[in-house]
Amino acid sequence: MPHPSPRVLIWNEFRHERRDEAVMAHYPQGIHEALAAPLRAAGLAVETATLDEPEHGLTEERLSAADTLVWWGHRAHAEVSDVVAERVKRRVTEQGMGLVALHSSHFAKPFVALMGTGCFLKYRIAGERERLWVVDPGHPVAAGIADCIELDHEEMYGEPFDVPPPDDLVFLSWFQGGEVFRSGCGWRRGLGRVFYFRPGHETYPTYHHPQIQRVILNAVRWAARPEGLEAPVRGRRTTPPEPIPPRS
Amino acid sequence: MPHPSPRVLIWNEFRHERRDEAVMAHYPQGIHEALAAPLRAAGLAVETATLDEPEHGLTEERLSAADTLVWWGHRAHAEVSDVVAERVKRRVTEQGMGLVALHSSHFAKPFVALMGTGCFLKYRIAGERERLWVVDPGHPVAAGIADCIELDHEEMYGEPFDVPPPDDLVFLSWFQGGEVFRSGCGWRRGLGRVFYFRPGHETYPTYHHPQIQRVILNAVRWAARPEGLEAPVRGRRTTPPEPIPPRS
Amino acid sequence: MPHPSPRVLIWNEFRHERRDEAVMAHYPQGIHEALAAPLRAAGLAVETATLDEPEHGLTEERLSAADTLVWWGHRAHAEVSDVVAERVKRRVTEQGMGLVALHSSHFAKPFVALMGTGCFLKYRIAGERERLWVVDPGHPVAAGIADCIELDHEEMYGEPFDVPPPDDLVFLSWFQGGEVFRSGCGWRRGLGRVFYFRPGHETYPTYHHPQIQRVILNAVRWAARPEGLEAPVRGRRTTPPEPIPPRS
Amino acid sequence: MPHPSPRVLIWNEFRHERRDEAVMAHYPQGIHEALAAPLRAAGLAVETATLDEPEHGLTEERLSAADTLVWWGHRAHAEVSDVVAERVKRRVTEQGMGLVALHSSHFAKPFVALMGTGCFLKYRIAGERERLWVVDPGHPVAAGIADCIELDHEEMYGEPFDVPPPDDLVFLSWFQGGEVFRSGCGWRRGLGRVFYFRPGHETYPTYHHPQIQRVILNAVRWAARPEGLEAPVRGRRTTPPEPIPPRS
Repeated sequence: MPHPSPRVLIWNEFRHERRDEAVMAHYPQGIHEALAAPLRAAGLAVETATLDEPEHGLTEERLSAADTLVWWGHRAHAEVSDVVAERVKRRVTEQGMGLVALHSSHFAKPFVALMGTGCFLKYRIAGERERLWVVDPGHPVAAGIADCIELDHEEMYGEPFDVPPPDDLVFLSWFQGGEVFRSGCGWRRGLGRVFYFRPGHETYPTYHHPQIQRVILNAVRWAARPEGLEAPVRGRRTTPPEPIPPRS
Repeated sequence: MPHPSPRVLIWNEFRHERRDEAVMAHYPQGIHEALAAPLRAAGLAVETATLDEPEHGLTEERLSAADTLVWWGHRAHAEVSDVVAERVKRRVTEQGMGLVALHSSHFAKPFVALMGTGCFLKYRIAGERERLWVVDPGHPVAAGIADCIELDHEEMYGEPFDVPPPDDLVFLSWFQGGEVFRSGCGWRRGLGRVFYFRPGHETYPTYHHPQIQRVILNAVRWAARPEGLEAPVRGRRTTPPEPIPPRS
Repeated sequence: MPHPSPRVLIWNEFRHERRDEAVMAHYPQGIHEALAAPLRAAGLAVETATLDEPEHGLTEERLSAADTLVWWGHRAHAEVSDVVAERVKRRVTEQGMGLVALHSSHFAKPFVALMGTGCFLKYRIAGERERLWVVDPGHPVAAGIADCIELDHEEMYGEPFDVPPPDDLVFLSWFQGGEVFRSGCGWRRGLGRVFYFRPGHETYPTYHHPQIQRVILNAVRWAARPEGLEAPVRGRRTTPPEPIPPRS
Repeated sequence: MPHPSPRVLIWNEFRHERRDEAVMAHYPQGIHEALAAPLRAAGLAVETATLDEPEHGLTEERLSAADTLVWWGHRAHAEVSDVVAERVKRRVTEQGMGLVALHSSHFAKPFVALMGTGCFLKYRIAGERERLWVVDPGHPVAAGIADCIELDHEEMYGEPFDVPPPDDLVFLSWFQGGEVFRSGCGWRRGLGRVFYFRPGHETYPTYHHPQIQRVILNAVRWAARPEGLEAPVRGRRTTPPEPIPPRS
């Protein structure tokens, strides 16, 4: 069962917020702190890490203490080291950590590696209206969301979203300019779960929206490493569970 | 493999076209004939059947000669006999006939029975613009469709669409009034396949649109009863393939 | 999120245990009580209902108080009234109650209606060995199960299992006589979830096996009606969320 | 629609057959030629490529001329260059080439990259009996296969198979020693399709078995790059399809 109170690690590129005044205005302590506050208010233990820390703040030790990793990256995907990206991926597939990838993290190295595809999409920055419609109202990630979330200004992402067919499809976005997008998608990967949630362009106050915060809380819980996880048995099995009689 | 040239049976309620002048103007020979023409032009053998024929034109004999059944119904779902609806369902699950359900056929008896859910949705008749975006460009049902189909006037259908998560999701619709919809969905049911395709309100000329016709042709081929189908072995198996040694 | 402690209703046909001494020996208080005991020991509120009660013990009131319904039926599927079967189905799709269908309940009316297929399979009663292998070790229903559950004597069920492709596949069974079966399968249906778990022929002590009990506990929690469920908005929407400008 | 007659490229590591007499006895011209013969007999245009050719025989030009690539590798996965592995992956996701991965190719670089997981499993070489049961009798890859394929001697592969939940599950294997395996699995990846088929350890004559040959023919057709494929539109969209009115 999901941890009622998983340990969360929030990773943020943390570049826009230190250089761009428009972003700073919305997220003076960084997007990671804006994401952390409502999770802490819900009683979760939350830590943060950023790109410019040693090993990007994603050491084996810190990952081992995380049940869910939330990821926000944009301009500096290429600066994430391959070693760290592979470490994150393995923590998901081998040990069951959840990964919640936000917005432009569709191009983050660990997300792309977990998908196995190019993760391309359409985009447009025009500050247009977005509506996120619930398509699976019984899904845990939609808990507390009635019908639709409306965001007055957002970046547009459009289909086709070059990801494998999601195992769980929770939200679809409508954009004022005419496009649609699968905005809330879940996948199982090895022992872990991945959730992609679309909104959150850095020049808009999206992560201060209470319903967006609720979805992220839901996703963090849904994706979290479950209790009672048994490590799978693998590799060579010399003794069969059932005796194999000799044959001519 | 799909029949290159499956035998198609098109079923139409055929009530609106005989009573409502606005519908008659678009479909003077009935929606079934508008659907049949482009399939015939593609070289397929097409027959038609309508509600007011004996057994609604859906005898065992006619169903047995169909590789795909296309269905359009709206006002008179309740007039379809339970016996015929069950016969259609079994022809799909037991013998592999494809079912292509169009527009308001989301409430048709055989479709609802194959889904196992209520098949509810939102709707609005306001003649608004619809765009059908391709989300799975490699899917056979999207063959020949570049990016998006635009319909100038259509009825709106909105999420949540109360169907099981589709095994194949091919199109998503954007509506001018603000909603979205999973407009092209495939499911496997027993030996057969079901495809739902949203457009086609009777007061608009949707089925004369060449790209809509192309999608329906694609769906008819995709859903068609495959050649080389082997009937599954079922029921009591007294002799195990592997001997079971006696145990104490 | 799943209820940590969902309210459970266990339904049992309760015929074999009153007539067949071999079954009575394993389940003197009935299969429902054998299923209830470990769930109660885990702290869940459990009630039971049986076929021969008025309305089979499945009134609207009792169903409304259940977050998960566990179902065991075999010989008397046809005696379950269509009205009650439909009521159970709607409680799942419309209100999100979970349904855990056990063993021969693959032919139970509510399960068959939720699947939309015939639910056929192969079977053989030879008291042979069964191994249930975990295929998705990170799945909540596999929590606490290491690699494999071994049952010394069980009925065989063999593929093809005539159900829609499961949304979640957790266990696969190996049988001594040579067959295999998808023994632990999950589906989403409307607001609810359905889990099918294969073992439990009435002449074997299967439901006294601690790991089988653990899986059923896991499945009850996984399928349970989630907290925070929002009723979906449906039907006619006269006022679009986005104004539709008049066009020529 | 699938090409009735796709162009096939068969890639083989081709090491065992030149060094190990037991393998040579079964496959004197190499596994690739044993795989090619029945495909050629079915009228398909087949070419072959092997590890020790320049660029492993997998130049851009040769891949561009292949609708499906069949892959057999085992001991020398690490010798496949990362550049070529990435080229194969992109030919699948970006241009829709099918990939049919056989047996020990579960660890082949392009397959692992397309899955996004570790692709681990259990194994045992004991020459035991394997039965491949059809679980989806209506699936094109099962065409012509009645119920079950029996192989007298094969290597065992056991669950959990560390791959994402397959979009299509066609075969399940039973092994004499007590394990089970998802032996025929399909996935969609970008514009392409991937099929994994388990049998084919090099010391057994598996690829001479007519039903195994039939499945591989079916899989080659199912996975093949479809005709009518439209390249997806991606990246920045400056002009929205729908005008975005200025807002205060």
